[in-house]
Parts: sequence; structure tokens; C-alpha cells
Amino acid sequence: MRGAVRGPALLLPALVILGCLCTPAAAATREYWIAATPLTWNAAPNGQDPIHGIRLDHATTVFPTVVYRRYTRGFERPAATPSDRAAGAGRIPGPLIRGKVGDRILVHFRNLDTATRRAHSMHFHGVAYKVRSDGAYIPGFSGPGGDVQVGETFTYVLDARGDSTGVWPYHDHGTSMDASIAGGMYGALSIRGRYERPPDREFVVAFAPLGSFQTINGRAFIGNTPVFKARVGEVVQWDVLAMGSEHHTFHVHGHRWRGADGVPLDTRTVGPAESFRVRWREDATGTWLYHCHVESHMAQGMIGLYRVRR
Amino acid sequence: MRGAVRGPALLLPALVILGCLCTPAAAATREYWIAATPLTWNAAPNGQDPIHGIRLDHATTVFPTVVYRRYTRGFERPAATPSDRAAGAGRIPGPLIRGKVGDRILVHFRNLDTATRRAHSMHFHGVAYKVRSDGAYIPGFSGPGGDVQVGETFTYVLDARGDSTGVWPYHDHGTSMDASIAGGMYGALSIRGRYERPPDREFVVAFAPLGSFQTINGRAFIGNTPVFKARVGEVVQWDVLAMGSEHHTFHVHGHRWRGADGVPLDTRTVGPAESFRVRWREDATGTWLYHCHVESHMAQGMIGLYRVRR
Amino acid sequence: MRGAVRGPALLLPALVILGCLCTPAAAATREYWIAATPLTWNAAPNGQDPIHGIRLDHATTVFPTVVYRRYTRGFERPAATPSDRAAGAGRIPGPLIRGKVGDRILVHFRNLDTATRRAHSMHFHGVAYKVRSDGAYIPGFSGPGGDVQVGETFTYVLDARGDSTGVWPYHDHGTSMDASIAGGMYGALSIRGRYERPPDREFVVAFAPLGSFQTINGRAFIGNTPVFKARVGEVVQWDVLAMGSEHHTFHVHGHRWRGADGVPLDTRTVGPAESFRVRWREDATGTWLYHCHVESHMAQGMIGLYRVRR
Repeated sequence: MRGAVRGPALLLPALVILGCLCTPAAAATREYWIAATPLTWNAAPNGQDPIHGIRLDHATTVFPTVVYRRYTRGFERPAATPSDRAAGAGRIPGPLIRGKVGDRILVHFRNLDTATRRAHSMHFHGVAYKVRSDGAYIPGFSGPGGDVQVGETFTYVLDARGDSTGVWPYHDHGTSMDASIAGGMYGALSIRGRYERPPDREFVVAFAPLGSFQTINGRAFIGNTPVFKARVGEVVQWDVLAMGSEHHTFHVHGHRWRGADGVPLDTRTVGPAESFRVRWREDATGTWLYHCHVESHMAQGMIGLYRVRR
Repeated sequence: MRGAVRGPALLLPALVILGCLCTPAAAATREYWIAATPLTWNAAPNGQDPIHGIRLDHATTVFPTVVYRRYTRGFERPAATPSDRAAGAGRIPGPLIRGKVGDRILVHFRNLDTATRRAHSMHFHGVAYKVRSDGAYIPGFSGPGGDVQVGETFTYVLDARGDSTGVWPYHDHGTSMDASIAGGMYGALSIRGRYERPPDREFVVAFAPLGSFQTINGRAFIGNTPVFKARVGEVVQWDVLAMGSEHHTFHVHGHRWRGADGVPLDTRTVGPAESFRVRWREDATGTWLYHCHVESHMAQGMIGLYRVRR
Repeated sequence: MRGAVRGPALLLPALVILGCLCTPAAAATREYWIAATPLTWNAAPNGQDPIHGIRLDHATTVFPTVVYRRYTRGFERPAATPSDRAAGAGRIPGPLIRGKVGDRILVHFRNLDTATRRAHSMHFHGVAYKVRSDGAYIPGFSGPGGDVQVGETFTYVLDARGDSTGVWPYHDHGTSMDASIAGGMYGALSIRGRYERPPDREFVVAFAPLGSFQTINGRAFIGNTPVFKARVGEVVQWDVLAMGSEHHTFHVHGHRWRGADGVPLDTRTVGPAESFRVRWREDATGTWLYHCHVESHMAQGMIGLYRVRR
């Protein structure tokens, strides 16, 4: 494959051989401060449904919701999030949590949902943790991390292990998880191998319904969904995940990639809470579509633009 | 991956090398006696829907149905099935049929459905057989094995070949298959490699609708679905399959595994009649959730508990 | 696996070793002339729904539509398409476009849709192309290839690269794509490796809804869907793809194959615009079923026959 970047599985033998020659990067402890916060969200700020050529009713696109939001150390204030924004994340989906194999990740979660006053939690896929950091509410079994009350804070202790490499969702798994997830309370973790170079560009693509729309990162239709940008020669990484009750198929025009089994793909199924990452070295200039290839989802807004310049 | 047990594909080179040093296990003929039998089934014996916090109407959880049931040799009497019960099987899903590569498996099937008096059959995935053992009714082509009448017996002759390794569904494929599968007439085959050690624990997880519920092994909601149990250090195997018309995503909290392509997963799509097996060496104590991650399915009962002790 | 034919990924090391010993086949330029043409289509010519044992109303099975059709060089006249017909293709799905890695494929597309007079296009998966050959209509960005008007012709320039090996869909991606795809405007590309032997038999299986039916290649129910035929010893290849808004599971009775990761399968999910190819050396005589294993789709016609003779 021209411009192919093979995944970590295929690099494993090389790592085993080269591992002893490298100065191992010290495993780090990374800390995140994330709060559940009320927000008024607009699924289609430009008010256009260009697929059916109609104006969208403001009442259907704008609604109050609760999302994950990054804060500065100690919850001093909401954090500026340029790197989240570059990845298409920050609100829906929430902060992009990054780590490397060997890292311990502490996520300090505070429930600031003064709007619905529901309990919330964070449940993380892909990383290892003791059961107290599971974040799922199970009557009679779960501790305080499964049901964080308004005004309270809980710290989840997560370990990125060798089998944590990849992209994973996190989401509310408390008593109100159905409503919370439907309102956008989910985000992505991106864990790379200990000696793996980061990509030049990282794009989060979260497929999920929102109100009457099928959205990418909480937005519907071209003009509202993220416009991802890259240049020829850059390694781009797509972090693809889905939430909700439906299966999707991720497709990018004009590009192909190989699965870890070596088979070329340009479209791949992703179901609720599934996730995968796709990488390639960019070589195709132009304005391309990326979208869910489920026809009815595309018609409800699950489509965006990807622009590649020389 | 800590505690990872790699699948047979990855062990293949080792088997090729070690094969000649082993005393080959003699290929066996295994016989099963299985009947279609009427049964009154309760999808939620505790009468609780803890997700919505309501009591379930007995009229919606209890109904007559027809299932596969294991009998002793020669259909003398219904068999005690402790190993099926330990795997979460025995009625819905039916008896767990086990074999090894090289085995011939004879399944003697008797239609004892005196309730609906419909013809039934067994169609097996994953194993090899001549067309007379296909078990599918095709007007003008199929023989007696595709449509076994009430009171009759048919023997299916199945061969576990090298490409039969894994977990597979079996189900009614006769004239009434739609109603039969909707009522729970399906089960699992588990075929391991000829020199492959069996796991310490084997859990069958069959996702399928039943009445107004989304069930695991014919049961809905925690308190009714199987509680799977293991101890740290044990090799556990999950036999995952789905029947019906919907796609699901299998997820276990606090655990990850690697696909045969080496990619770490903790959630995986399974569609109707698809199946896969997942193994790991257990290292995470606690009471964990396993569930279908399709939100609407979880809300209709597709969720259970997995308890790991030291 | 008895009779297994491994995919190109597994042959890669052998190709690297042997590559220098081979006389490389000259890369070719292949040309196709394909037009959008009106057609009256019958989804069930025999008028039977054998699953429910009812006669189908002619008004539900016969309708006007627009499909891709192969023409002779320079659009002189509609082409005879015996090789398409052998593969189950030619109208729905459209002409089977074949190529090898290294080929340049020119698809001359003419819009002869004098019935609906809509603009149409061709968007190709799997192959590489410059953005002008993308075939997708994007307001403000796409050129004439995204929206070919009635009476006009556009030539798409496609390159089969190393990562184009496999089976891929093509389809209308113009302004009327929803209606066009629902009416059958899709087809398959089949790209094999540069040194890869073609199979003895190639069968296209396109799962898609059509009117009130769930169809294989635009036909519903046994008696209407393609009857694929092979002989023992032949290498058969199934080109599986889906279009529309639903996920499917492809199953063939009495057969198994290995995924590129080495895991045996006999049922596999395919979602909208996903595609894969399956190969085996035939060794099982009989009349077998192939079908989508989603129960409701099977009941709406997504099932056919596969006949293997000695």
C-alpha cells in the first residue's frame, strides 16, 4: 500500500528486537480533570440540511444537554482545549484522553450537572483498572465511582497496558446513562504503544444519534460536522467509535487502509461502543467526503469533509 | 497482554513443530441424543426490570415454547446436565455440543414437540457434513433431516475438521424455523483444536430476542441472566453467538482480549448466526458486567454479571 | 482447512521471494463503457414467495428503475454480457468490473436515463483516483463527474494499486443517490493481485433492499435469486457486498473458510458499502443454501441456491 503505516501488531517483532537498544521512555502518570457540565448544544449551527435542501427548524437543532468538559488542574477553571478542538473533540465527544502503554492515567471526575442534578459517572474501555474504577452503577455492588452525585468528585485510576493500544470510548455508566449517552456524554481515549510515534494529525469520528439527527461529533450535515485537514506526506490517524443503538460503516473517499490482518479496506462496520483506529500517510490532495455509509444515516446528517493540501 | 491466551491460529507454528513429539489423541466418535421438547419458559424468574425499576408482568415473561434438550443414550430419559448448566446452557440455548478436530459427531435428534406438532430440524454451523445432514428444509431437494416429523428421529453425521475450530451456532432450519428460533430453538457447538487444552471455564453467551425482551441465554436483566464465575489464574472462554434479526456488541467490563489479528478489543460485533470465542487468563477480581452494548438491548435486558474471586 | 485457498495477504511473503523470478505481467489499461439506462425490473419473476407459501402481487414485484448497463466500445450498442451473467451480475448489480493490481481502469460513463432525467454518477470503492474521478456530488467542490447530466459522458480514471486487491462496490453518488441506490444503481469491482490466479468461478452476492423485498442481486426468494453452480475441485470465489441501510450476515451451508487472520468462519457480517471476498476449493457436492442469516431478511427473500456437482 502506497503510504501505508502498519499498525502496532505488525511492528511487534521489530519492537522485540529493537526494544533493548532503546532508552525506554519513563512510564508517566497523566492527570485529567473532567467535569459533567450543562451546555446548550446546536447540532447544526448553520441551520441547513443540504441533502434535502431545506432549512432546519431551530427548535430541532438546539437543546440543553450535559457533556464532559476538560478543566485545569484542581478544577480551577474550564480549560482551553486547542488540541481537543484540532481532533474534533472537546464537548461532544468530550476531552480526548491520550496515553502511552505503561502510563497510569488518573481521571478526576466532578459532577457539575446542576441542570438535571442527575448522578453521572465515567466508564472507560480499553484500559485496565480495579473494580472500584469501573464507573458502572450496579445496585448492591458498585461503589461511589458508579454514581457520582452532583457536587462530588471521584478519581478513576486507569492503567494503559500492552493490550490497551488503540482507540476506545468512555461514557456515562451511571443510573441515567441512557439519557446521558443520548445527550452526548461520551468521549475517546487514544493509547499508543510505548515506542510508537504519534501521528501528525489525529481525528476523532464519533458516530451517534442526537435528537432527530445522526451525528458525527454531535453535528449533522456538511457545514456543521468537523472539517478535517491534512497535508500530503503527513501521517493521519482516524479514531473511529460509535455510541447508541445502531451499527454504522465508516468510509473515507479516495483512500484505503489495511486491517491488521493485511486486508485492504475503505469501509468498516462499527457498532455501539466498538472502536478502531485507521492510519495512512496522506498522498491524495483534494476535498473528500468521510461519512457513515448507512444510507439513512447519511441522509440524517452523518457526513463531513476532509481536505488535503499539497 | 497480561494473562493473554492466544488463539489457535497463533499457536499453529508451535503445533507444527511440536506435533511430531506428541502422542496423537485418537480421533473419537461422540454421540449426542437431543430432542425438541415443549417447555414453559420464564424469561425473568425474579419478575424484576431493575433498569427501569419496575415489576414485570408475569404474562409477558412466562410462555410455552419448544427447546432442544439433551437425553441419555437411546433417548431413555432427559439427561442431567451439570456441565451444560455450568456453561449457562441446557435449555435456551440447548445442550453445548463439544468436540475436537478429527472427531466425528453423531447427533441423534428426535422431535418430541407434542405441543405445536410442528416438524423441526437441526442445522449445524462450523462442522463439515454431507448434504443429507444439512438439516435445512428446501422444497424438492432436502431429505428427511430437513423436516423431522413429530415422533421421528434423524441422525446428523458431523465432522470436526481443521477449519471447524471455534464456537458455532446450531438451530432449527425446518419449515417452522422463524417461530422456533424466536422461541429459543438454538444452541452452541464448541470445537477445539486436536492438541488444544480446554479452558478452565467455558461460558456460552447467546444474544437473541425473546418475546418483548432482548435476552442472554433466554433470560432478561441482572438477577435472571447467568452469573458466570471464575477465579484468578483460570483460563476462561466465552462462546459468543447471536440469533434473530439484529446485530449486537459483546462487552465485558474490566477485561480486554486480542483478536487473532493481534488487535486488542473489549467490545465486538456479532450478527445473526455469527459467533466467536474469546479467551483470557483471569487476573481481575470483582463483580463485573457483561452485556450487549447496543443501548436499547441493554435496556431490554441484555446484561449479566461476571464474578471473579481470588 | 481442506481445500483452502489462502488470500493474497498470506501469499505476500512468497510473492516477495518469487517476485524476481517471474516475468511481470505488463500492467494494462482496461476500458469499460457503462451507461445509466431505464429498465423495467421484476424482483420475483416466478411470482412466488415459497417461505410464506403465497403468490406475490405483480404490482409489488415489477417496477421501472434505472440501472448500470455495459455497452460496447464507444457506446455503439448494449453489450452481450455472458461473463457478467455467469457471475450473477449485469443489471442489478451492474457490470462486474475486473482488474489486476497495476492496471489503469477507464470507465466511460454515459447518462442515458431518459426516464427520470436525473443526473447520475459512479463512485468507486477500493481503487485509487484523483479527486475529479471521485464521482461524489459535493456542492461547491465536485466537478462534472459528480453529477453527469442526461446525455452527457464522463470518464473516470481509476488505478488498481497494491491495496486495491479484493472486491468493492461502486454506486451512484450524485444528487439522486438515495433513490438510485434504492432502485439498484450499484455494482462490483473485483481486483486481483498482479500474480494471482483467477478463480474458476466467481459469484457476486449483493445484499440490498428493493421495494418491499430484501434481495440478492435484485431478486427475492429461491427460484428468482441466482443459482450458482460449481464442480468439485474448482476454486470458487464469492464477491460479497451490501448496499442500503442495514447490516447483513452472509452464510453458505456446508462450507467454511478462513479469514485473513486464520480464523475459520461460515457466517460474516457485511454492512452498507462493505465488501469482502471468500474463496475455497470446492469439495462438497449437493444443493446448498446461501443466504443472509438475518431472519427477517431471509423471510423477505434474501436466500438462494448453490449447486455443486462432482
